[in-house]
This record gives sequence, C-alpha cells and structure tokens, in this order.
Amino acid sequence: MKILGAIEAGGTKFVCGIGTESGEILDKVSFPTTTPNETLAQVEEYFRNKTIAALGIGSFGPIDPRPGSPTYGYVTSTPKPHWGGFNLLGELRKHFDVPIGFDTDVNGAVLGEAKFGAARGLDNCLYITVGTGIGAGALVNGQLIHGLSHPEMGHIIVRRHPQDQYEGHCPYHKDCLEGLAAGPAIEARWGVKGSELGTDHLAWAIEADYLAQALVNYILILAPQKIIMGGGVMKQQQLFPLVRSRLLEWLNGYVQHEAVLNAAEDYIVPPGLGDNAGLCGALALAAQA
Amino acid sequence: MKILGAIEAGGTKFVCGIGTESGEILDKVSFPTTTPNETLAQVEEYFRNKTIAALGIGSFGPIDPRPGSPTYGYVTSTPKPHWGGFNLLGELRKHFDVPIGFDTDVNGAVLGEAKFGAARGLDNCLYITVGTGIGAGALVNGQLIHGLSHPEMGHIIVRRHPQDQYEGHCPYHKDCLEGLAAGPAIEARWGVKGSELGTDHLAWAIEADYLAQALVNYILILAPQKIIMGGGVMKQQQLFPLVRSRLLEWLNGYVQHEAVLNAAEDYIVPPGLGDNAGLCGALALAAQA
Repeated sequence: MKILGAIEAGGTKFVCGIGTESGEILDKVSFPTTTPNETLAQVEEYFRNKTIAALGIGSFGPIDPRPGSPTYGYVTSTPKPHWGGFNLLGELRKHFDVPIGFDTDVNGAVLGEAKFGAARGLDNCLYITVGTGIGAGALVNGQLIHGLSHPEMGHIIVRRHPQDQYEGHCPYHKDCLEGLAAGPAIEARWGVKGSELGTDHLAWAIEADYLAQALVNYILILAPQKIIMGGGVMKQQQLFPLVRSRLLEWLNGYVQHEAVLNAAEDYIVPPGLGDNAGLCGALALAAQA
Repeated sequence: MKILGAIEAGGTKFVCGIGTESGEILDKVSFPTTTPNETLAQVEEYFRNKTIAALGIGSFGPIDPRPGSPTYGYVTSTPKPHWGGFNLLGELRKHFDVPIGFDTDVNGAVLGEAKFGAARGLDNCLYITVGTGIGAGALVNGQLIHGLSHPEMGHIIVRRHPQDQYEGHCPYHKDCLEGLAAGPAIEARWGVKGSELGTDHLAWAIEADYLAQALVNYILILAPQKIIMGGGVMKQQQLFPLVRSRLLEWLNGYVQHEAVLNAAEDYIVPPGLGDNAGLCGALALAAQA
C-alpha cells in the first residue's frame, strides 16, 4: 500500500497528514500559518521520518498552478505578509524527492470529493466553500480548470438583495459575491457572528439568495452534475433548503434537467468528506501526481 | 486531402458546406429552416453527390450533446414548432455513413476559432455570440464543456444598469443577460433597431455594461486565455472598446494577469473566421469526429 503525503496550506493554519490512495487519512497534525520559513520548518519536521510515494498541496491563493510557467508553484499576490511572491512548491521540492501535485485548496477539494466523497465517479462537479472568503473549484470533463490562471469564482457579480443595505467588504469590488456573502459580511451586516443569529433570521434568506445566484451562474456556465457546499458558513444547515428553493426560483424552469428540478437534495449537498475535505483534496492531488 | 461535411443548423437558416481539415470552406449553400422533414431533405440533396470523410453539426438548441444518453442528438425543448424532441442526429445518420460530430452551434464556434481562427492553439477560450439570443461555448483544457448538459451561458444573472428601465424579454427570467442585452432587447428598449442608433448613443454604454459583467463572470469561473465576441450585435464595432474598458472597471485590478490588464485588445476580439465561424465550427466538429 502506497502512503501519500498531504498538505492543506491555509492562510490561517497548515494541516499536514498522510493517507492512502483511497482517501483514508492515517495521521494528521495542524499548526498556525506564520512566516514561510517557520511554517515550512514544521512541515518538514512532520514528514521527516515518514516515507511517502507522492505529495499533494492544496494551497490558499492566489497561486500559479500552471506547470511550465516561470512562477509555477508560487503564492502570487496574497495580502498575507511574507507570503506574496513566495515559491512554496520550490521550497518544498528541496525537501521532498517525490512527485508533487500543487493546486488551489478548492481545486484540491473538488478533486477529493470527486475521488473519495460526495461526487464520487462524476467528471463534472463543483465545490464551493463559504467561510472567511468564498472560493470554488470545478472539475470539467474530469479535469481541473486551468486557463489564464485558476478560477476565482468567489468574486463573481451578483444582484443585490432588495432588503440588503450592507455595502460589502471586498477590497476590490465591495459588493461582489464574497463581499456580500462571506462570513465577515454576515457579521458586519448584522453586528454579531452568524452563529449567534436564529435559524429563521432574515440573514439566512439574504445569504441564500446570494449563494443561489452564484449557483445559477455556475450551473449555466459549467453544467456540473453535482454541487458541494462547504466552509464555516455552510455549517448553518438551514441554508441548504433555502439555497435549493431560491435556486429553483431564479432558474424558473429554465434548466430542464431532473437532477436540478426534482432532486435538488441530491444535487446540492454538504461535503462527503466533512472536515477532512481539504486534506483529502491534497491527498487526491498527490494521487494524481 | 480529406473532404469534410459541415452543417450549421440554425433556428432561422441552415448552412451546409464542405471543407478541408485545415478549415478551408470549399463550397456552401444556405436555406431557411422550415420543418425538419423539408429542411433535412434539402440537406440530403446538397450532400448527395459529395464524398465526405466525416460530418460535423453545430446546432441551435437546447440539444442533448451527451453521447450515451438515450436522447443524444435530439433537439430537446426548443419553442420552435416541429423541432422540439426531434432526433436530428438520428435522422442524419440514416443518410450519412461516416463519423458525425454533434454539438451546439456555440460549442462548434469556439472549437472552430481554437482550431482555425482567433484562438488558434489555445486550450482555454470562450466564444460568445450576441444576436437574436445570447449563447457562449468554452474550451476548457482543450475540451468542450459537457456536464449535466451543455452550458447555457446566455442566461446568467447580471446587475441592472442604473439608467435602464427596460423590463427584459427573456420568457424564463425577464432580465437575465439575454433578456437585457440580446438584439431584441436593444430594439424594445429604444424603439428602433440597434443598427439605427448612433455609435455614441447611451444604448451602447448600457449594452457594454451588461456584456462586460458577463465576461467578468466567465473570466472568474473559466479563466479563458482569449474571448471571442461574435453575432449580429457585435457588428457594432464601437462595442469592443466599450466592453474592454467596462470590464477593467468591474474587475478593478482583481485579475492580475497582463493579458487582461494590459492587452485587452488582444484578449477580447472579433471572430477570426468572420461570418464563416459557424460553418468552420461544424467543420471542426467533423474533424474531431
């Protein structure tokens, strides 16, 4: 049995682990993301006495995920101090003489869900995380999207909810999807954390409207066979039925496919891998490498 | 030299032609789209004495483009009389004993532009047509998108322009992109055809705003390396600079890629194949088959 290494490289914390090609996590550890030197020393320390056949990294971004590009493997323009322009993959290569898969955290997550989780066996699916930020990764014909760079689906334009006066917090766009619907937007709009709001609060109808609009656009552009919604905000389980019904209202019968029309419960789902989605995603990137 | 057959199956007219694997059109003919029986008899007549190695069909839709599906090759739910539920591919197979490629007109068009036209050599690009309706096709990692079905990118949600009071004409969504920005919307909004409006009319600023919003979402979701804009409305050449500058305003520096930031003239372009984009697309589908 081959043992694979996995790194979920987040802006807040790094999770390192080892697991199998079938997605089973055998061991994991996590530590806060500080400086590149300090954090990578802990990564190296964790893997030192472990023999791995390949390594996968699902990283916070933006990154350069295009093999062959001069900055392939770099964290590019993040506002996080010390990490902008850092050659994350290059630094790891100094310590790991195995094939390394490197991609965004959400690209890893969608690959993990397609290999091991809620979208097993599907070639076209989408994973969206709604937390401190909003990001999404998609599999198209069995492959992750890499064009000009990786997608940045969290920043798409949505129409403002008529009862929403909040200006939005995205530093680039103010009221793009992330600016209106990420966790910090909910907290700024209502003055308390989302987890302190009642499950029937207007906050969730507004949130569901924004997320449903995003899904409408993802569906019309990518035609995914399944949509997986994860991240801290989606722990509010009441959002799932709200998003599903608002989605059908927005589509208004346009997408004539029974998966969308009749079986929204199976179409829009939580991660099959639960809190291991990120680490399993990195495992999937290792398996692919 | 192999001769390929191509059918651009539009809702208004059918264009049939023959050409080479390198995208050269050798002969073509067009006739109005009437009933399936009548129209296909004309198709058959055109090809009767021509020897072709493969046939490609870029069809109006919606269609079922998924090989293996029970309704593969059908025109599905079109409002056009007689064509809804018609087995277009099955009917053609009765007359053509060659490999047949079948896809949407816009999927054909993007493939044609990538093989022979403005996006030659690129694996990730997008073709949008703005005419009687709005549709788009995209190549992702060198492949056309087929998930749940084909994309329906013309119906995405955009934010209403503050100076626009027109309700929109989409029968499903009223004011989705197609409902606000297709040719009939321009005519309904201003009471005259777009071609009769001056090139500095407010109409074009509003039109450019809607199209730029669509491109923002396509870029953030698909990361195309080039965007080709065709169709009757895009004959208004003044739209290109307006769309490019409005796109940069909406993105507000977010996509840090020089192709978008510094070279928008090379990034958002008219079809390289001109009015042959549809037929060359069908040729490309034939070559792929």
